[in-house]
Amino acid sequence: MPEPLDLHEDRFFDPDPAVRRHARTLYDETRALPLVCPHGHVDPAMLADDTPFPEPTALLVAPDHYVLRMLYSRGIPFESLGIAPRDGHGPGAVSVEADPRAVWRTFAAHYSLFLGTPTRAWLDYEFYHLFGVREVLSAETADHVYDGIAERLSSPEYRPRALFRRFGIEVLATTDAATDSLGAHERLQADGFRVIPTFRPDALFALCSPNWGDHRADLEAAVGFEVGDYAAFVRALENRRAYFQARGATATDHGVVEPATRRLPDDEAETVFQSALAGRATSIQTKKFEAHMLMEMARMSTEDGLVMQLHAGALRGHHAGFTARFGPDRGADIPVATEFTRNLAPLLNAYGAHPNLTFVAFTLDESTYARELAPLAGHYPAFRLGPPWWFHDSVQGMRRFRERTTETAGLYNTAGFNDDTRAFPSIPARHDLARRVDADWLGGLVARHVLSMGDARRLAVALAVGLARETYRFPTPAAEPSPPTFP
Amino acid sequence: MPEPLDLHEDRFFDPDPAVRRHARTLYDETRALPLVCPHGHVDPAMLADDTPFPEPTALLVAPDHYVLRMLYSRGIPFESLGIAPRDGHGPGAVSVEADPRAVWRTFAAHYSLFLGTPTRAWLDYEFYHLFGVREVLSAETADHVYDGIAERLSSPEYRPRALFRRFGIEVLATTDAATDSLGAHERLQADGFRVIPTFRPDALFALCSPNWGDHRADLEAAVGFEVGDYAAFVRALENRRAYFQARGATATDHGVVEPATRRLPDDEAETVFQSALAGRATSIQTKKFEAHMLMEMARMSTEDGLVMQLHAGALRGHHAGFTARFGPDRGADIPVATEFTRNLAPLLNAYGAHPNLTFVAFTLDESTYARELAPLAGHYPAFRLGPPWWFHDSVQGMRRFRERTTETAGLYNTAGFNDDTRAFPSIPARHDLARRVDADWLGGLVARHVLSMGDARRLAVALAVGLARETYRFPTPAAEPSPPTFP
Amino acid sequence: MPEPLDLHEDRFFDPDPAVRRHARTLYDETRALPLVCPHGHVDPAMLADDTPFPEPTALLVAPDHYVLRMLYSRGIPFESLGIAPRDGHGPGAVSVEADPRAVWRTFAAHYSLFLGTPTRAWLDYEFYHLFGVREVLSAETADHVYDGIAERLSSPEYRPRALFRRFGIEVLATTDAATDSLGAHERLQADGFRVIPTFRPDALFALCSPNWGDHRADLEAAVGFEVGDYAAFVRALENRRAYFQARGATATDHGVVEPATRRLPDDEAETVFQSALAGRATSIQTKKFEAHMLMEMARMSTEDGLVMQLHAGALRGHHAGFTARFGPDRGADIPVATEFTRNLAPLLNAYGAHPNLTFVAFTLDESTYARELAPLAGHYPAFRLGPPWWFHDSVQGMRRFRERTTETAGLYNTAGFNDDTRAFPSIPARHDLARRVDADWLGGLVARHVLSMGDARRLAVALAVGLARETYRFPTPAAEPSPPTFP
Repeated sequence: MPEPLDLHEDRFFDPDPAVRRHARTLYDETRALPLVCPHGHVDPAMLADDTPFPEPTALLVAPDHYVLRMLYSRGIPFESLGIAPRDGHGPGAVSVEADPRAVWRTFAAHYSLFLGTPTRAWLDYEFYHLFGVREVLSAETADHVYDGIAERLSSPEYRPRALFRRFGIEVLATTDAATDSLGAHERLQADGFRVIPTFRPDALFALCSPNWGDHRADLEAAVGFEVGDYAAFVRALENRRAYFQARGATATDHGVVEPATRRLPDDEAETVFQSALAGRATSIQTKKFEAHMLMEMARMSTEDGLVMQLHAGALRGHHAGFTARFGPDRGADIPVATEFTRNLAPLLNAYGAHPNLTFVAFTLDESTYARELAPLAGHYPAFRLGPPWWFHDSVQGMRRFRERTTETAGLYNTAGFNDDTRAFPSIPARHDLARRVDADWLGGLVARHVLSMGDARRLAVALAVGLARETYRFPTPAAEPSPPTFP
Repeated sequence: MPEPLDLHEDRFFDPDPAVRRHARTLYDETRALPLVCPHGHVDPAMLADDTPFPEPTALLVAPDHYVLRMLYSRGIPFESLGIAPRDGHGPGAVSVEADPRAVWRTFAAHYSLFLGTPTRAWLDYEFYHLFGVREVLSAETADHVYDGIAERLSSPEYRPRALFRRFGIEVLATTDAATDSLGAHERLQADGFRVIPTFRPDALFALCSPNWGDHRADLEAAVGFEVGDYAAFVRALENRRAYFQARGATATDHGVVEPATRRLPDDEAETVFQSALAGRATSIQTKKFEAHMLMEMARMSTEDGLVMQLHAGALRGHHAGFTARFGPDRGADIPVATEFTRNLAPLLNAYGAHPNLTFVAFTLDESTYARELAPLAGHYPAFRLGPPWWFHDSVQGMRRFRERTTETAGLYNTAGFNDDTRAFPSIPARHDLARRVDADWLGGLVARHVLSMGDARRLAVALAVGLARETYRFPTPAAEPSPPTFP
Repeated sequence: MPEPLDLHEDRFFDPDPAVRRHARTLYDETRALPLVCPHGHVDPAMLADDTPFPEPTALLVAPDHYVLRMLYSRGIPFESLGIAPRDGHGPGAVSVEADPRAVWRTFAAHYSLFLGTPTRAWLDYEFYHLFGVREVLSAETADHVYDGIAERLSSPEYRPRALFRRFGIEVLATTDAATDSLGAHERLQADGFRVIPTFRPDALFALCSPNWGDHRADLEAAVGFEVGDYAAFVRALENRRAYFQARGATATDHGVVEPATRRLPDDEAETVFQSALAGRATSIQTKKFEAHMLMEMARMSTEDGLVMQLHAGALRGHHAGFTARFGPDRGADIPVATEFTRNLAPLLNAYGAHPNLTFVAFTLDESTYARELAPLAGHYPAFRLGPPWWFHDSVQGMRRFRERTTETAGLYNTAGFNDDTRAFPSIPARHDLARRVDADWLGGLVARHVLSMGDARRLAVALAVGLARETYRFPTPAAEPSPPTFP
């Protein structure tokens, strides 16, 4: 007999009766608030086109690198999950599974691998609240669950724009190449959807990448003038930032392994840029240029007011052969130890007290929370702590973040929650889990008489929506939009 | 209506009834014990002169870098807090607020920034127990609280020496330049106050600092002989240590970024010293010299018995322009990752088993607790773990320290609590919080049947007073002095 | 009056009634399961010879570096503990205590040093369950406890093989030099004891060690052919691995400070090997060779199927003079910060997806759990997380391991428990503590509605025996062997 899927009303709350009572009270304050989504990776074309989702595997398995990597880690080849190697990298010994139902069965048979992970919490939430599933996914229930979800996906209420409204999303920021035309955003905004872009110029700073020339050409096409020297490059970036800002962007985003920041003299920046134009930029030059361009990005932010986000410490494509076969963002990125105190000193000395800068730092190295990031946020006016990122966007990860940063930086130097997801249907689940974890943590402080319930209530709302709105310079809605339909 | 300020009797204790019951029992054993203060930064002249505190802002806001930095981190200029830039560094765009009551109102209006921080816990304790405040500080209550505190400060019971006695301070160690005359300590000791100095020679080891020449001149003046070579320098230090010891010092203190220790050959030490005399010591020479002088300090400790304290890992003045404007110790120091295992190997190999050495290590890098410091303390007889320092002197910080060090080093290799504060009126609050956290942690172990209540009782007293007395070689009082008057 | 020794049935469980109830239920599932011991340091000759243990000190104090180092850390000389310095390193000022009862009294008088440590938990378990002690060890009870244990040790049921059976050990892996003849294992297996070797070739890779020549000679003797070049060295290793495998080995083990892995070209490997033969291998050559040989070990594992274990991050003999006097494995090894992401990239890129490789990583640097190791285990099919090692095989250490790895890697990418001990009589105590901690952690997840009780039950058994059997390729017993006799 299949195990019933039953999401307990008090799940993730401390079992202590006092803490649980407070947690429930606090969660009741935030559960129905709109979803503020200032950073993520949803494809705006999917929303703009409003194409129906084909079937469960394409929606829930194929695009979710959390799901794929866990199955892979236990020896299930990507090909069995329906993922074909890229051209020139196959076929291997394993044939690519063409039947999405067969892939679903493999996933279902291994669903216990996710026990105790946030992926499981998010998926069970989606199954239950979004798709009405009432039995735990397993080899036994695979087909029944698949059919139930497939049936729902065929109805109009499950098309992307309908879900967007039903989720109660107040604003959704995507992450976009600096050269993107942002046509999808324009279409969505014309139809009243607050889907805004985020300016992410990383590819233009990667001078020694083989694709850099193409990205520079895209930039020229986007700005309509030649980008033949460093000064023109800077003008082009300013131009594109304005273009993004005119389409609703309030932030930039920058992904680096090491968060080095250091200004180059203009002539050296020009020399390096000319090396890149000539196709012979070295990796040392590239590092210097990236560190320099972070300074420039901060300088531009002090002028145009775009919030500057920095995501540091992910070594992309650790498994090189795998990444060549299956592409990036497939679960083969591994964090490295990261240094912020010395690396960010030039940027923060130059701009960290500028009243027009908001700088949000994200880390994959939790040892920096209490040692470096909370002290930086507890001093520099521009500095905000980004929420627990990626591997750390989890029950224990969120708890560790609060426990290691609050006592030094307080709560008002944090940036609020973001879901950071590519998996569109997981957005409500992720906000719900974060709100539960925050309510539980605050409830524990109330039970320990560290906070009054009044303060905890205000903080719960700040953590759920207020801090994100403030940090990302979103307007506070005059009247709150209608709350999400579920749970 | 203002929110009442109500300090719950069981604050900071686990809400579980069993843990809370044990915690309360254990806290009752220690709450009234005298305050042993082996390391801190109180100004001895303030106590010696016994000058009345002028008004609340000068007492509670201006000297507390925890308060100042948090307000600054949210965009409040130091000038608005009444802090004037140093000569030649202003005036800026912001005028310096001259009215302490206006500063207090700014502080009060932002008091919610401190929710969940130890600063809040300490201040609320001071407000309640020391000043009889019965409403939560806020914009609304600012003036009433200010007036209440100001009135008390005008009475004789609130002069420094009266508070010292009322606090139940058994001994208070200050931190003093190696060249200090210690006149304030002499006056206090003559009047029966056990206020003792700590020998901190950092400035004399910073060969490439522009002020080094002045410090050397001060040293010559203090010892009455010429310090023209390295041998004389060593003699002068030994001389000053004896001078401190004669005035009650039982310890030295050393602040370093990286805790490197390595002996130089005498002739190289001489060469480096001569470079410094000539005003051309390099930063590399300075680092070598500092590492060498730590070896010498340990060697001298084996001879004179002064406890050697090492505080590692704070990058001072991270925000250079800010520090130039407002001076050191204003909340702009940021920790860095710190390595102890290899750095301390020379010192510990040479002296770590010497029966006359006690070496107390403090870190701002919590990742070293379980990885390096607890294993070192669990082997070397001389090695003691200093209590959680600075950013980590907090509820969660103290908890992490115990959870990460006890299972390897036990409790008897730790150095007991110290308040490490410049904020004199916060001393009882800091000891009280530490005693609560320790009682809660021990109570949890009793509830888990890891400790018997008898063992936990003994440990609670050891953590509160016994280990500090033993580590710092203070006599155990024959009869306990009278307990503090509050709470 | 002596304090009674009373091991509470619910010790180490959360005091919350819901968690405790679940924890007890889960512990009841695993407490009587056989002990699977895939990694440890028990001396096989002790079991093969079945020599009676002489008396309590020789059994419980002298061989346990956890006990010795804690006593030493509080100033008790090794000589007072009956440990003689090695030839040429003494005698010192302290005479070697010859009376084991006197050593026991010293140990007993300082037993409170172990409060809150796993050593205390293990010893109390042994005292209570193995030796029937019913009073807490102390100066007062020292003789009585000593006599009670001594009396039991004189009976046949306390000889090594009898204890092995009584403990319910399903399989015990030892750690053995690559050149070991494995005679003890052969004798034990002939008598029906499943005691198997583990192939540990570290000494053969340490080219610049003064003993390397001897180890190479031992290798030649073991394989019966000349090992005069790198190719022969590789053949000899393959030969020895087969020899170990024929005697039951299922795994290799490798201890390194830094887990560097990088293949050398064959000619460079040969050059380095010839330098070693000539007695002039440098430390840089040695590091390169060790990194290369880890690649070779992984390559061989893909061929012969031996599980590859890597223990990284222990700086051996930190206290050099002490180690020279008293030998290795005496509690003077101190961990260092360890990097896995970049160091293991070559090995994992080459072999991390090979279906025949299982690679188990152990760390002493907990900051790598969430940052590096869990993400690696959550991607690479070959990668397993070894259980918390050494200093971290403790209540809080095991808890931190679960909390920092599970949400990224899940539970099925972990390797199960191992006791890793030289202290044979502590084996049941160590498994019992691990089973309690796991039951408590799982019980907390049930109480928080993260896991169903059914899932938690299955996971508890997996953590206790299943994952170890699977990881180390042990057969799952058709019928479970009889459970241990106690508790």
